[in-house]
Amino acid sequence: MALSIHGYAAHSATTPLTPHTFERRDPRADDIVIDILYCGVCHSDIHSARNEWGNARYPLVPGHEIIGKVVSVGEKVTAFTPGQMVGVGCIVDSCRHCDACQEGLEQYCKESPTFTYNSSDRHDGRTTYGGYSERIVTSDKFVLRMPEGLDPASAAPLLCAGITTWSPLRHWKIGKGHKVAVVGLGGLGHMGLKFAKALGADVTLFTRSPGKEQEARRLGADHVVLSTDASQMEAVAGRFDFILDTVPHQHDLNPYLATLKLNGVHVLVGLVEPVNPPVHAGSLIFGRHSLAGSLIGGMAETQEMLDFCAAQGISADVEMIAMQDINTAYGRMLNSDVRYRFVIDMASLKNT
Amino acid sequence: MALSIHGYAAHSATTPLTPHTFERRDPRADDIVIDILYCGVCHSDIHSARNEWGNARYPLVPGHEIIGKVVSVGEKVTAFTPGQMVGVGCIVDSCRHCDACQEGLEQYCKESPTFTYNSSDRHDGRTTYGGYSERIVTSDKFVLRMPEGLDPASAAPLLCAGITTWSPLRHWKIGKGHKVAVVGLGGLGHMGLKFAKALGADVTLFTRSPGKEQEARRLGADHVVLSTDASQMEAVAGRFDFILDTVPHQHDLNPYLATLKLNGVHVLVGLVEPVNPPVHAGSLIFGRHSLAGSLIGGMAETQEMLDFCAAQGISADVEMIAMQDINTAYGRMLNSDVRYRFVIDMASLKNT
Repeated sequence: MALSIHGYAAHSATTPLTPHTFERRDPRADDIVIDILYCGVCHSDIHSARNEWGNARYPLVPGHEIIGKVVSVGEKVTAFTPGQMVGVGCIVDSCRHCDACQEGLEQYCKESPTFTYNSSDRHDGRTTYGGYSERIVTSDKFVLRMPEGLDPASAAPLLCAGITTWSPLRHWKIGKGHKVAVVGLGGLGHMGLKFAKALGADVTLFTRSPGKEQEARRLGADHVVLSTDASQMEAVAGRFDFILDTVPHQHDLNPYLATLKLNGVHVLVGLVEPVNPPVHAGSLIFGRHSLAGSLIGGMAETQEMLDFCAAQGISADVEMIAMQDINTAYGRMLNSDVRYRFVIDMASLKNT
Repeated sequence: MALSIHGYAAHSATTPLTPHTFERRDPRADDIVIDILYCGVCHSDIHSARNEWGNARYPLVPGHEIIGKVVSVGEKVTAFTPGQMVGVGCIVDSCRHCDACQEGLEQYCKESPTFTYNSSDRHDGRTTYGGYSERIVTSDKFVLRMPEGLDPASAAPLLCAGITTWSPLRHWKIGKGHKVAVVGLGGLGHMGLKFAKALGADVTLFTRSPGKEQEARRLGADHVVLSTDASQMEAVAGRFDFILDTVPHQHDLNPYLATLKLNGVHVLVGLVEPVNPPVHAGSLIFGRHSLAGSLIGGMAETQEMLDFCAAQGISADVEMIAMQDINTAYGRMLNSDVRYRFVIDMASLKNT
């Protein structure tokens, strides 16, 4: 048995996304069936749809910033009830027994987590399909509770852009007294500014584009540094405890590493393959700097982030689109023409 | 006024070191005059003598692994007395007031430390000259107390090779329960094995050369992995908390990063400029790995290391040479033909 689901899919690396009907599994005892209301649009969706990571399985239904309403729950589910607002992020399962899973860091599962789309369910082997669709069926342990007071549409990007920036800020214990720099002002960067500020840090935005000062300050930056201006970079040499680097394309890290103070950490959260031009060992050795990476976040810290957002009145800045606009939206994202995340209003799917 | 000193110097990047007489400052109130008994030979000495870092000032007297006996002390010196055995390492002064200096991390002095040779004294501007010489004059705060029971000749390399490996192991709090890998078995690597083992870690040597197993185990390794053997590398995937990378030439870090466990740290202590082939962001992001650097060590931790060595019966494995053998020794070092550090018996200087 299976559920017939309507959605949008990529059918090849070079063709636009189009309407597509596919099957989801018949719900298991620990499953929750969710009516999808909103789905954020992440750069990973484009990479996957266009097979830029070389592992696309078509038809491919993207989307891993999912907000919806519980329709029904399996007999073993106790933490959720029909009608409740919930979220599903980038992962929908993991081995649940390795050290990482035991620590609540399912994203680093030693046996690899099951991703929300373009992955294989670890029980029945079916391909997983994402949130550009009317419903999703997900094991209860990978469903997030949406706290009261969080606007569901603008909360969608918290499930990927939010947690990807929240997790490293928390892991490296960023707070009051720290000087934090965020590199790049996109979907991730704008959340990085908001979180770093809300956690009490003194926040700087590094940007290559003049004219972002006002926006950056509105989002939480105390300072803006034009990274293309050598004198501005020189003025912040040795300044930062922590750099959150959200840039998804190759860039020279050495000028940023020079702005770290003793024991400073530069964390990559946008994927940059490989790090080119190469890092200089001297950029790390002098000042005992670290270059690190961080991947989305675990279920417990994602729930923590959602609760923090509700308490602090934080959400993503979004531009709502209809499902039919997705191909245009991809084009605009590639031109950095979005402030700061597209979110699909899934009600629009009924018109396709 | 000044002291006339006999030693060995490089006079150009391309000529051998030869006998050389030069001046040291007349001792200041906080200075200690030290008769040099032994001086270790570090790869930095070769880089400097041959101007491979582009900043050589000739004549250049190398040597920063110095053990000697106090001849006299200035009127403000209270911690040392004539006849006492002491050490001088890579740095002989710093600003003494920045955050790093206040924390006892003089090697990261914001105003740059004064290096033992090829640097400028921060008071009189004179060029500093190293330990390939009969005497040195050093401010008391940068002189180490040699604990009882440490053999002075084999202690010399502790002042650079020793502290360079000790400092990161301590900073990252390596001890019992940790799995540590050391990359490379040279002057630094052999100290890394000894220290990691003595601190209670489970220790692995990564080497490109078969046949080092017995030596590695004698020095403290519990396991030896041939890094050129893909199946051996695969067998240790995700294994290590900490990698101490002592290799001084360019090498691919990605295969080593794959052997780190969740939150694992790979620290560069040999200078590798730049890190090529480049690191993959995925090598850092998946597993929340860090690539870091570490530079020698501060005065307090150098003293701590010497005291630890005396208590644990640890010293370097050395091959004694005469001052006259230095050019041959450089050649052998470049062929990795030394177990594991040359130390100059400075008594030989009297014959030149």
